Amino acid sequence: MPDAQTALSLTRQLAKAKGDAAGPRVANTLVAELSSLDDDKLAEYFDAVARELVAEWQTVIHQINLAKAGTALLVDVRRRLLPLVKSKPELKPLDRELQKTLTSWFNGGFLTLRRIDWDSPASLLERLMKYEAVHPITSWVDMRRRLAADRRCFGFFHPSMPDEPLIFVQVALTHEISATIKSILEAPIVEDPTPSTAIFYSISNCQKGLSGIPFGNLLIKRAVNELYHEIPSLKTFSTLSPIPGFRRWVMNNTDIITGLTSADKAALEVPRWWENPESCAVLELPLSKAAARYLTLAPQGRAPDPVAHFHLSNGARLERINWQANLSENAIAESYGLMVNYRYRPNYIEKCQEAYRLGRVSRARSVEGLLQTPLRMPFLGN
Amino acid sequence: MPDAQTALSLTRQLAKAKGDAAGPRVANTLVAELSSLDDDKLAEYFDAVARELVAEWQTVIHQINLAKAGTALLVDVRRRLLPLVKSKPELKPLDRELQKTLTSWFNGGFLTLRRIDWDSPASLLERLMKYEAVHPITSWVDMRRRLAADRRCFGFFHPSMPDEPLIFVQVALTHEISATIKSILEAPIVEDPTPSTAIFYSISNCQKGLSGIPFGNLLIKRAVNELYHEIPSLKTFSTLSPIPGFRRWVMNNTDIITGLTSADKAALEVPRWWENPESCAVLELPLSKAAARYLTLAPQGRAPDPVAHFHLSNGARLERINWQANLSENAIAESYGLMVNYRYRPNYIEKCQEAYRLGRVSRARSVEGLLQTPLRMPFLGN
Amino acid sequence: MPDAQTALSLTRQLAKAKGDAAGPRVANTLVAELSSLDDDKLAEYFDAVARELVAEWQTVIHQINLAKAGTALLVDVRRRLLPLVKSKPELKPLDRELQKTLTSWFNGGFLTLRRIDWDSPASLLERLMKYEAVHPITSWVDMRRRLAADRRCFGFFHPSMPDEPLIFVQVALTHEISATIKSILEAPIVEDPTPSTAIFYSISNCQKGLSGIPFGNLLIKRAVNELYHEIPSLKTFSTLSPIPGFRRWVMNNTDIITGLTSADKAALEVPRWWENPESCAVLELPLSKAAARYLTLAPQGRAPDPVAHFHLSNGARLERINWQANLSENAIAESYGLMVNYRYRPNYIEKCQEAYRLGRVSRARSVEGLLQTPLRMPFLGN
Amino acid sequence: MPDAQTALSLTRQLAKAKGDAAGPRVANTLVAELSSLDDDKLAEYFDAVARELVAEWQTVIHQINLAKAGTALLVDVRRRLLPLVKSKPELKPLDRELQKTLTSWFNGGFLTLRRIDWDSPASLLERLMKYEAVHPITSWVDMRRRLAADRRCFGFFHPSMPDEPLIFVQVALTHEISATIKSILEAPIVEDPTPSTAIFYSISNCQKGLSGIPFGNLLIKRAVNELYHEIPSLKTFSTLSPIPGFRRWVMNNTDIITGLTSADKAALEVPRWWENPESCAVLELPLSKAAARYLTLAPQGRAPDPVAHFHLSNGARLERINWQANLSENAIAESYGLMVNYRYRPNYIEKCQEAYRLGRVSRARSVEGLLQTPLRMPFLGN
Repeated sequence: MPDAQTALSLTRQLAKAKGDAAGPRVANTLVAELSSLDDDKLAEYFDAVARELVAEWQTVIHQINLAKAGTALLVDVRRRLLPLVKSKPELKPLDRELQKTLTSWFNGGFLTLRRIDWDSPASLLERLMKYEAVHPITSWVDMRRRLAADRRCFGFFHPSMPDEPLIFVQVALTHEISATIKSILEAPIVEDPTPSTAIFYSISNCQKGLSGIPFGNLLIKRAVNELYHEIPSLKTFSTLSPIPGFRRWVMNNTDIITGLTSADKAALEVPRWWENPESCAVLELPLSKAAARYLTLAPQGRAPDPVAHFHLSNGARLERINWQANLSENAIAESYGLMVNYRYRPNYIEKCQEAYRLGRVSRARSVEGLLQTPLRMPFLGN
Repeated sequence: MPDAQTALSLTRQLAKAKGDAAGPRVANTLVAELSSLDDDKLAEYFDAVARELVAEWQTVIHQINLAKAGTALLVDVRRRLLPLVKSKPELKPLDRELQKTLTSWFNGGFLTLRRIDWDSPASLLERLMKYEAVHPITSWVDMRRRLAADRRCFGFFHPSMPDEPLIFVQVALTHEISATIKSILEAPIVEDPTPSTAIFYSISNCQKGLSGIPFGNLLIKRAVNELYHEIPSLKTFSTLSPIPGFRRWVMNNTDIITGLTSADKAALEVPRWWENPESCAVLELPLSKAAARYLTLAPQGRAPDPVAHFHLSNGARLERINWQANLSENAIAESYGLMVNYRYRPNYIEKCQEAYRLGRVSRARSVEGLLQTPLRMPFLGN
Repeated sequence: MPDAQTALSLTRQLAKAKGDAAGPRVANTLVAELSSLDDDKLAEYFDAVARELVAEWQTVIHQINLAKAGTALLVDVRRRLLPLVKSKPELKPLDRELQKTLTSWFNGGFLTLRRIDWDSPASLLERLMKYEAVHPITSWVDMRRRLAADRRCFGFFHPSMPDEPLIFVQVALTHEISATIKSILEAPIVEDPTPSTAIFYSISNCQKGLSGIPFGNLLIKRAVNELYHEIPSLKTFSTLSPIPGFRRWVMNNTDIITGLTSADKAALEVPRWWENPESCAVLELPLSKAAARYLTLAPQGRAPDPVAHFHLSNGARLERINWQANLSENAIAESYGLMVNYRYRPNYIEKCQEAYRLGRVSRARSVEGLLQTPLRMPFLGN
Repeated sequence: MPDAQTALSLTRQLAKAKGDAAGPRVANTLVAELSSLDDDKLAEYFDAVARELVAEWQTVIHQINLAKAGTALLVDVRRRLLPLVKSKPELKPLDRELQKTLTSWFNGGFLTLRRIDWDSPASLLERLMKYEAVHPITSWVDMRRRLAADRRCFGFFHPSMPDEPLIFVQVALTHEISATIKSILEAPIVEDPTPSTAIFYSISNCQKGLSGIPFGNLLIKRAVNELYHEIPSLKTFSTLSPIPGFRRWVMNNTDIITGLTSADKAALEVPRWWENPESCAVLELPLSKAAARYLTLAPQGRAPDPVAHFHLSNGARLERINWQANLSENAIAESYGLMVNYRYRPNYIEKCQEAYRLGRVSRARSVEGLLQTPLRMPFLGN
């Protein structure tokens, strides 16, 4: 079909380019072409490139980058390529090359950490509102709250896409490790110049086209550094994180299921049980203990829960498991409303990392306590 | 020996790093170590890396980049590695990987064109004075002249090294294609808002560690674009370039040598012949014709003169050969004082490039004229 | 009382200061003191200053300006002083001096025109939403609409208060002179690169403390200039303005009242008559003609309507009177929903200004037409 | 004559302007006219303005300020007016009004302290080299030395003239209070992160048109503040200052002259006596004591030496008198090569100021010592 053909023709030209005068001009035209292709024609385009031009694909990528906003276009190309790769393994080599190049170009050494606040461009804040993945930003009033004096927000940016954040983290400055998301999102502003604790309560990757390229570890590291220098009273750095894989794991884990009493099961069957005080009283301990077990698994140094794996491989330790931490539909469905604090202690990061690689999850005493007691508690009358 | 060992030990750590917490910290320490090694210890370091760590060298490079000023350090590492590679071919793989990565990171899409003028930082101008390779900048007065209203200076910069130019070009805005460098360097300032001609009279690569990574073509292209938008009266874009390989070629070319008359040879033997009017009268035509022959050679699409090859492969054409264009010792030694104008005509660039690839050098009529006449001129009474 | 006494004591120190070392220090303390005084104590403070320190008030003002954010504090002091001056004429000298100094400091030569758009800081946009006086900005969605590609927003800023706009204007880029505010506020975005008309539909002064200091004329002038250079297709520059004094004038004008027919009066008595088609049909002409009469009055070169006086003394002309231009409660109460276009024609500005000073309001033909016909129209059967 | 007439005519227009549309346009034209008048025609212009327009001169000044670079033009107008005022007292009112307005506009609250270093624009450094009044900057190498890591340079800037410094100070970071200018200007760079002393060795006012408007006190205050925050190890802040009025005072002071022995006088008569060790040995004490007397005079709180008056009224104290501190021709002619340290001790500034106003110069013990001993020293065998 015509459109994909134009793009292909331009691509073949770029494939032969080598310091060619036409390079940037052809690249600019190709960028416009690719941006205008609908999904079907783009799939055709990829098919043809995979068939004809795999050997020159690196050259083409580097030529496209010469166009105005070329890097951004390549990130967008990958965003549109990724869904296709699942069903068409022949496109894998295209993605492999593209991911390798983008990973190199977006190396942490090229990323700038920027603090985002209420003086940032409205257009940028609007993007954050769109990208926020964990705890949706419901309005400009909500956005403003998250940028108040007792909050911080940091993002990574790349010089080639100065207005588009790659990833951003939201932080609450508090006096203790937060146990519920409500205590952060609905808290009144506290103007305290000497908070002791920084709670990283949300991290959102913004660019689907940069999937699989790891930014989070470096972002947390640099944000902790930045905060520590700005606010010397900060002694504790912790997250308040979801446990996305917990419920699914429970459902598939016969041990746990057998361990639940009939009282437990009955409690779970109460409609909107998490708003029912009796159900919650019954379920708190068994579910917390199950979560402790789930989160301390790390066969071959890889925790089954992706968020746990992320923080533990960054060198955090399992600090505390929080019951009724998030009562949104999503959190109930994911993890019975439980959330967990992962704590980063600068002097122990490398040690924790080491231990985790060998399959041991570092944990605080409260978690150890949950593990010691058997799954079934005598006073629950099972 | 101790120093190289410390650096090696840190390098081994980085080689195993993969999202390792220690990454940036170890990288910063390694950067400091490498910067402190003298040439001998650095050579040791490279030897060991080539023996032990070739497979992980890419990883190490990407880890070093995480350090503060990591990219600049890698450029400096390559600057120090290059001289060693000539005598130690076993180090070639290290350079190959490093050059490949730097070429990708310094892709034109990441470079910013900046106009440099008298309002630029003194520290930057001081760097230009150090890096200027073609016509040395002799003093701050000279520097100031080159940044006056009838001059332009553009440089490429990379975000990771914002104060270090990668390459810069100097331009004179005039009314005709300059025939001598003196008419540029010693001209009084002309405040003319509508010049017709832009003469690119100097290009200097600034970073030895980025040797072999081509910036010049893109720089000229973008500078021409920039100038054309700023000054719509500009119609002609040309260089005034040295011919570094000319004299050596003449010395080794029996045809040319045989073609020289005894009068020619006598003229050349006069001490400081280029200041002697009679010698110059004798030599002008034979040497100009020889230059025309030299500059129109392009076997397999590659001119022997590196400056000619650069501009011709960029799509310029051979515009004019200038006698007594540069009377400095260097220019006399290189090319008998001859210089050449290469002219960039936007509508013909791709055509000229094509022709050049096929071995044909596009040339203006005046050059054609020099070629038509035989090497020996009857009126020279030979 | 204590507080006002502390401020007074500091003020007496500043009154004696002359290059005194303590100047900035005392000024900073006084700024903090004054900011903390409630209205009563501040009134006391002013009373004492008026009694004791009128002779040194200029010195005090200049000393306060040395404090951090001193200029902003002085603007705020005047904001709080102005309401008191009405009831306490003894404070007039204080305001006179303060206004004189602020007028000099905020001379147009020190003001920067800045374009405000969706990339401006959210904090700045939030301020605009607060200051917008004419057509309230109802939400962030509304704010965003007013900064879209077919809109412009310009503000004046002073270097001493870089985040606080002094005055801002909102502009719609259209194809004809807008007749209703709805056609601007509720229009879908039009992405047209060559609009012919710029409608200035809102001007808001932001700083009450700078009342009486005229910024509007210069703002319009510079905004017109800016727009003309950015968009050469713009040929027509007009406002869409309210007529705040119209209804009051009608109510007090026996001529007009006698000129109204019983049908007119009946139409006006219909509840929410402006939503009643018959009432509107009856009232359009008589009210439009009355408005024409009102707006062409300029005894001694001063139109009774303050908005008219502003634009006419800037050199605009009365372009068109618009029936049912604004159906908000406020506009109905002010001017029966009528609005007017004042048009700025660069080549005629000085002429129109001259004429206005002599009592003649320049008007377009359509307005002339409304004036020619008598107030009572035969077909209205009166 | 024609030129002055054009300027006068434009000035009369501005005199009548009041929110006039023509304001900025006429102002821009007048600015161009005034800039082109030679000294004679400008003198004519001033004469006419003084005769005709004194009452409207304030209005004219405020209108001129609306022009592009209007403030800078007014500063330049005053620069050219000042020399005329001496011989033509009828121009005094013009200068009085202009100085009053400029003093208000250049109030310290509007000035920005900027650190100037080797990364500052070359054009700015070139200006410093031109304006440096005390110790001429002899070359770019000298300029560079004065901006090295062990030096600081601060200037005041006004937003209306962002590239023109109003005044700048040069500081050396050392380990003790410098006794000679040579120890500063010719010192090798010392890279010490914890210097104890900041020596302010040069202050230069840059704008003749701003004569009589005091910037120095505030500059020193803010520079001390800036330095103290940047380098907490700094404990001592002192100047190394010339004594411009000393020699003249000695020549006219019979007491001192009578106090000189014949040996003293003979020593002074030796050609280039300051390079003669014997002369210096003889003269050190008598001249130092004379200097001590000179510098501790403050009848009615005003020291005869202008530099002394400046620092003492800023609250500094007389710290030390330095023999052979500056051997340049100028310094020998001014003060026999003596220089003085004025020391600013933050906790004593107000006290020292107070004392100085009452006629007492605060001095350190070494100076007190010089005063105690009589002018004639027995061991000099007089």
